[in-house]
Amino acid sequence: MGRWEPGTRGRLQDVAYDLFAKHGFDAVSVADIARGAEVTERTFYRYFADKREVLFDGQERLREAFVRGVTEAPSGTPPLGVVAVALDRAAVFFPDDRRDGSRARQLIIDADAALQERELLKLTTLSAALATALRERGHARLQADLLADAAISVFRVAFGQWISEGQQASLGDLQRAGLATLRALAS
Amino acid sequence: MGRWEPGTRGRLQDVAYDLFAKHGFDAVSVADIARGAEVTERTFYRYFADKREVLFDGQERLREAFVRGVTEAPSGTPPLGVVAVALDRAAVFFPDDRRDGSRARQLIIDADAALQERELLKLTTLSAALATALRERGHARLQADLLADAAISVFRVAFGQWISEGQQASLGDLQRAGLATLRALAS
Repeated sequence: MGRWEPGTRGRLQDVAYDLFAKHGFDAVSVADIARGAEVTERTFYRYFADKREVLFDGQERLREAFVRGVTEAPSGTPPLGVVAVALDRAAVFFPDDRRDGSRARQLIIDADAALQERELLKLTTLSAALATALRERGHARLQADLLADAAISVFRVAFGQWISEGQQASLGDLQRAGLATLRALAS
Repeated sequence: MGRWEPGTRGRLQDVAYDLFAKHGFDAVSVADIARGAEVTERTFYRYFADKREVLFDGQERLREAFVRGVTEAPSGTPPLGVVAVALDRAAVFFPDDRRDGSRARQLIIDADAALQERELLKLTTLSAALATALRERGHARLQADLLADAAISVFRVAFGQWISEGQQASLGDLQRAGLATLRALAS
């Protein structure tokens, strides 16, 4: 499983993912993770508020990347073009060397109902942030809400393809194909 | 608040909604609801598995309505046309005399993080059921997943408009406007 970040944070993540995958999320304690990473529990809490946050650590930066895409798309860019820029920014977070780690994370989440609900809330929060940014670009509320949902839908579906066994395409390419499919379906 | 169903079930729902709205979801017990409806707790449990299910009671029938729309749309109907039929079927569940009750329900859910997560899971379950039905109509998986998400997005956004203060339009009309907006955004 690829290490997501260097140093102690990355080691804690690696150990936590391994333990969650082996024993299930519920059966693993912060003490187990700290022991496996050869640090104190106190050190764990310097990096993460609780064990769930190991899995949702990058959420804030992903949200910022999405929103920056909307904010920085050149003025005059058509609506789905703005969505495309936001998706490209988000894809930067998931280079192919994170594919295995992302797949492992998804398996952990799929095995736990509470984590699934947390993941859905994450996607909804992303959509709401995108909708706000789209309104600030001048889109009416209805347009902004629908566009933001479409962006998150393309992200979610492409992400599922990206982490499926044997997939070779990059997340960016899968998102572009998804957006093209959505466009074709709507016309 | 409009009664959703006649008889004991409807009375239990009315009482539960009133109590949830007044005291918050967490502070209300099944005993409180049963007492308010002048039945025993045992009677409550004949209708609902727990107090949360009072709020999510119609989920199954809503899912069936959505899916039936996809199944029964005439062959040759274009993709967004199929979505339109499914949305029309779903709208039958929400005539305007359910608007006040639906708004009250939403306020209860918005006030409770766990209920919000449950509501998101409900929408995701609806989308998954729609995607399965769309695949059975012959759509490729990518198309089916994106179309299903688009349908649920239009439903969710239109539903939010439908229960907003002062709104006069029907859910069906709002959904049709949402779908037209989505189509315009994609072209």
